[in-house]
Amino acid sequence: MSTVRDEIAEQPDVVGRLLDREAAAIDAIAEAARAAEPTFVVTVARGTSDNAARYAQFLFGWLARLPVALATPSLHTLYGTPPRYRGALVIGISQSGVSPDVVGVVDEATRQGCVTVAITNAPDSPMAAAARHVVDLGAAPERAVAATKTYTASLAAVAAVVVAVVGDDDRRRELASAPGLLAGQLGLVDEVGPAVEAAVGWTRAAVIGRGANYATAFETALKVKELTGVAAEPYSPADFLHGPVALAGPDYPVLALAPSGATRANVVEALDEVRARGGRAVVVSDDRSVAVGDEPWVPLVVAPEWLSPLVAVVPGQLFAVGLAERLGLDADQPFGLTKVTRTT
Amino acid sequence: MSTVRDEIAEQPDVVGRLLDREAAAIDAIAEAARAAEPTFVVTVARGTSDNAARYAQFLFGWLARLPVALATPSLHTLYGTPPRYRGALVIGISQSGVSPDVVGVVDEATRQGCVTVAITNAPDSPMAAAARHVVDLGAAPERAVAATKTYTASLAAVAAVVVAVVGDDDRRRELASAPGLLAGQLGLVDEVGPAVEAAVGWTRAAVIGRGANYATAFETALKVKELTGVAAEPYSPADFLHGPVALAGPDYPVLALAPSGATRANVVEALDEVRARGGRAVVVSDDRSVAVGDEPWVPLVVAPEWLSPLVAVVPGQLFAVGLAERLGLDADQPFGLTKVTRTT
Repeated sequence: MSTVRDEIAEQPDVVGRLLDREAAAIDAIAEAARAAEPTFVVTVARGTSDNAARYAQFLFGWLARLPVALATPSLHTLYGTPPRYRGALVIGISQSGVSPDVVGVVDEATRQGCVTVAITNAPDSPMAAAARHVVDLGAAPERAVAATKTYTASLAAVAAVVVAVVGDDDRRRELASAPGLLAGQLGLVDEVGPAVEAAVGWTRAAVIGRGANYATAFETALKVKELTGVAAEPYSPADFLHGPVALAGPDYPVLALAPSGATRANVVEALDEVRARGGRAVVVSDDRSVAVGDEPWVPLVVAPEWLSPLVAVVPGQLFAVGLAERLGLDADQPFGLTKVTRTT
Repeated sequence: MSTVRDEIAEQPDVVGRLLDREAAAIDAIAEAARAAEPTFVVTVARGTSDNAARYAQFLFGWLARLPVALATPSLHTLYGTPPRYRGALVIGISQSGVSPDVVGVVDEATRQGCVTVAITNAPDSPMAAAARHVVDLGAAPERAVAATKTYTASLAAVAAVVVAVVGDDDRRRELASAPGLLAGQLGLVDEVGPAVEAAVGWTRAAVIGRGANYATAFETALKVKELTGVAAEPYSPADFLHGPVALAGPDYPVLALAPSGATRANVVEALDEVRARGGRAVVVSDDRSVAVGDEPWVPLVVAPEWLSPLVAVVPGQLFAVGLAERLGLDADQPFGLTKVTRTT
């Protein structure tokens, strides 16, 4: 068994521990954020953590009605002209907490007097030191290069912060079901088999998802790229239809994230266009009928829409690892990548 | 000669006309924006226009020190929970001005009392009607499916709005040089030939650029996808190094945008990593030495960094059209795409 499979399997425990241990820290963040009355949120992150930031972008918008800007680190590190963050709640997300670009934005925002939050698996890191508040993912060391448990832990941290900020006690209780939902999804581990077989020979693909699962599309595509070498590009179905659909066809398959909820019809619309152009689809959904004919279908457990990204990413993780193994690649040390990347 | 080549050639005139005719409208926007004292900017757009919005994200950050959020249209159209835009300057960019998702965000922001701006080639469109202020691109009908002149016109509109908002008269004068710079770049039309020849056989690629030219990477990749069917994915070099570099190798070439300025060293760093992994590069730069060995080099005219995106996209446009022609594709009606895409 590979390390990355071990770490995927740890996810229910990691999320459960996080929600217990960080409750007080998250309450303190909520109190500070409510006192500051932010008018918008700024996130800063790279790679997998940036996909967790995309979930934050959706969830702060949906539940707290706050617009969310993804930071432009080059303004800090290369141009020396950091934006003014007046009115912003600033959240850095980084497993290692060391990448200078991410640390730079958090540090500057703290200096400007913002409420700043570091979500990290390294509470002694420079990013944690730069922030006023820290959520410690407590995921134990993540040894596989491809981040999995720190991603779902980051999603859980984001979810906990947002519902605490808006004071939504119903959703706070609902969040306690996340470890169980994750365990349920992991129980379906073998169901990705047909999708993996269908993907042997892929060199490029699109991954589509929207709303809550726009982040899931990005994270699934990144795992597929890192672990299998397939050039998988993520899109919202709307963005996909504004141009990239040009590529749809027999040699450009589409992996579609279609959990129940407000965006499923939209994903199905894009799938129909892909099929009309002769493209092949793999469907990840809690509703088998989204797949047509012999298209591989990967089942999702039924989850509340706002929490669905925590479970909807698991098939993507298992698909990427399964395809890497099927192709004879090393899923723990893919393509000479390093665990910690320092960029400016 | 194809329609898209005609429209590429019109760009200096289109930009020149725009800067003359819309000066008063842009002054009015600047006055309203200064009075409202926005703390951040929200942009909403799809496809090519969303890439112009990426330029706005950079330029408002760099010159006006304002963080910029790209809107989440699904919160308006699918979830029915629009964010509160208090303190925001909201800018919609759309050639046609009809996509319901884009119109919905602008309409809601106007309803909430924000200063709203529509940048569009259709001043009678629903988006223009929804906004308090309109910048009419005045680019004459764009008949080719792939947007070219409306992209550079949108960049010029963004540049004019930003320098008016910050009251930077030096840059305002400098902006008047944009048509001349564009004409100079168009004079180098034949210089993309070696890059086109090198790209025959590509099925996937990365396009990297950062800072001012992060937008250029996205727009170049979109043109390549739409016109040639090559799965070209855009990245900042920093994001590229956080995972996707896994794909670098003989069958995953990289097109690098490396104009002079703060980000060039960063792009070169990523190029070195690509070369170390056996990947091939095509270099777009005003400095030939960025290309090594027999790598194709596409020359850029020397432009002020903040305006460089207006010229740096031209090689991408010509490369995509040239490769489409070389592959026997119809560069005006690629892959059954339609000119106007309506998404929710």
